[in-house]
Amino acid sequence: MGEELFKFTVVKEDPHTWARAGILHTPHGDIPTPVFAPVGTQATVKTLTPRELEELGVTLILANTYHLFLRPGPEVIAELGGLHRFMAWPKPIMTDSGGFQIFSLEPLRRFTEEGVLFRSHLDGSQHLLTPERAIEIQEMLGADLITCLDECAPPLDREYVKEATDRTHRWAERCLKAHKRKDQALFGIIQGGIFPDLRRESARFISSLGFDGIAIGGLSVGEPKEKTLEMLEVVVPLLPRDKPRHLLGVGAPPDFFESISRGIDIFDCVLPTRMGRTGALFTRKGRINIRNARYARDSRPIEEGCTCYTCQNFSRAYLRHLFKAEEILGPRLATIHNVHFMVNLLREIRQSILDGTFSSLREEFLTAYPLEEPLKMAEED
Amino acid sequence: MGEELFKFTVVKEDPHTWARAGILHTPHGDIPTPVFAPVGTQATVKTLTPRELEELGVTLILANTYHLFLRPGPEVIAELGGLHRFMAWPKPIMTDSGGFQIFSLEPLRRFTEEGVLFRSHLDGSQHLLTPERAIEIQEMLGADLITCLDECAPPLDREYVKEATDRTHRWAERCLKAHKRKDQALFGIIQGGIFPDLRRESARFISSLGFDGIAIGGLSVGEPKEKTLEMLEVVVPLLPRDKPRHLLGVGAPPDFFESISRGIDIFDCVLPTRMGRTGALFTRKGRINIRNARYARDSRPIEEGCTCYTCQNFSRAYLRHLFKAEEILGPRLATIHNVHFMVNLLREIRQSILDGTFSSLREEFLTAYPLEEPLKMAEED
Repeated sequence: MGEELFKFTVVKEDPHTWARAGILHTPHGDIPTPVFAPVGTQATVKTLTPRELEELGVTLILANTYHLFLRPGPEVIAELGGLHRFMAWPKPIMTDSGGFQIFSLEPLRRFTEEGVLFRSHLDGSQHLLTPERAIEIQEMLGADLITCLDECAPPLDREYVKEATDRTHRWAERCLKAHKRKDQALFGIIQGGIFPDLRRESARFISSLGFDGIAIGGLSVGEPKEKTLEMLEVVVPLLPRDKPRHLLGVGAPPDFFESISRGIDIFDCVLPTRMGRTGALFTRKGRINIRNARYARDSRPIEEGCTCYTCQNFSRAYLRHLFKAEEILGPRLATIHNVHFMVNLLREIRQSILDGTFSSLREEFLTAYPLEEPLKMAEED
Repeated sequence: MGEELFKFTVVKEDPHTWARAGILHTPHGDIPTPVFAPVGTQATVKTLTPRELEELGVTLILANTYHLFLRPGPEVIAELGGLHRFMAWPKPIMTDSGGFQIFSLEPLRRFTEEGVLFRSHLDGSQHLLTPERAIEIQEMLGADLITCLDECAPPLDREYVKEATDRTHRWAERCLKAHKRKDQALFGIIQGGIFPDLRRESARFISSLGFDGIAIGGLSVGEPKEKTLEMLEVVVPLLPRDKPRHLLGVGAPPDFFESISRGIDIFDCVLPTRMGRTGALFTRKGRINIRNARYARDSRPIEEGCTCYTCQNFSRAYLRHLFKAEEILGPRLATIHNVHFMVNLLREIRQSILDGTFSSLREEFLTAYPLEEPLKMAEED
């Protein structure tokens, strides 16, 4: 299905870890991997224009099917030429299936074999999302990479996880059957909570279906960080080498190193955008809160040597002023810096894999970057 | 005072009206006139970066002394290298005196001969703004064009207007005496409400003091539009030909034509930015409200043929979606379009004066553009 249009080339494998540098070819351009995709929930990466995203070196964004289904609706977007044209973003787009958002709607949703029945958080209207409908909607939206409907159960409840994972497998088969567009790559999703046997079973089953890519779901949703990493170690060796691997909804800067060294190629996360809007700014030494009084007269950029538009032009003092004065330019400039930080970090990691210096970059980065609390992030922004 | 640094050249005068095309030379670059200055109340033109302002062809912005005095404070801005560097805007800046904002603070303010005593709208702290202090603050901010402290009385109360105008004159002399920096042009302000004799007296007095530029205050603050225009007709012929004339806080697109044909060179107004943030977008046929349901599937740009970034890339349907979804990109794209509309209109007007076609452009524009309610706008955004 669309395999010729979505060739994934592994360019270099790190000899000491599972890390690899690759290129995912799509009809809207090449995506060098590992890659970080900013989240554009409502067909806009919050505060940024497509031009800015391009200048930041973004090569992939993720939009949320649940939100676009409710507003403006897939028919409107299809009528206006699809998501790329609607939001004027000419490069690759991925859509999720909507399952994760709807799972979070409790008690406004109910999962059955048929699909998931839910009420809109906007107007309370009732909808049934089936695997077939999830694919139909994503075909109308027209992203390059699309996703099977899955059920992301809370990771610790084995019985529920087993049931949800089995259902996710049956839905994966239905999604595959429903998917018609040749210019979209369909990703299967692996579930299985924090149970190695369930994760192995899911990895083997999803891998057997011949998807264009593999997503790993249900991780970094509250379980201990060691469990997340253990699951990656269990799953990744069972995956086809020639398909891209997406770890859904991750993550913070240290997570990139840990996950890439365990074989992940694609990340999406609201962290840089959502944090940016609150004034939390990433640096190589951890996050700073620009609203802090200590920055009131600080003429330095957020981070010395950073090449983003924000750091090239504005002081911490000015940024703090914008946040204190509640000016929109504050969240804008913070988002530019944070997205640049993430995209640039992934670019550096990729280069280090090509150069054979991944392990030393990883050590250097993790030494300077403080341990952070695990961050629980919804996959929407 | 700074005359060599601020030469104003009249390039062409319209033979049929008082309209003229000129160039105001400043230490931060030339300002072709007539010109529209977007308002950057808190050292940011709301939603826009300096880079965007440059791309929009903006050559002058106005910042509000009252707001910057309260936050972050003139000392902070001076310590960080002045307003240009603080906000990373390399082109000309004008500051008002703060008088207009403070006048609007009633009952939190009291005017006396010494100055105006007021309480901050942010924290209730009490301050005395004298003519000398208004100049001192503006010297710390470091704008290219600065303004005398004045009192803008309600335009209809003759006795109050007379008193306020006389005081404004005495304050003008004190401001002139207090002003030391040679790299700033000081504008005197004419008051006089809607009373021709008071306006004439004020025009003559202010003109006699040798300011670098003349601002006309206290108009478009609620009086009938005919009165505004009548006051311009009374005042302008009494002003020195070789000084730029600024009509404070104006205006809507038709106002430009009416005021320019009566001899005005400089405008500032919050209209394009404030309107833009609510989804009101300017076109040659008047304003449209992009939130209207009729635009839900409208694939056209805001205005056919418009060369702004917004119209070159996005449909009305997408803009409506952004506003309905309360995405920051909505106000951003709307502001870009509206500022482009104003700047571009002024550029066209200037060209028409040079080409000798001002009167026909004026007729053409005013025929297509519907009459609008008079807009009462504060001089801050």
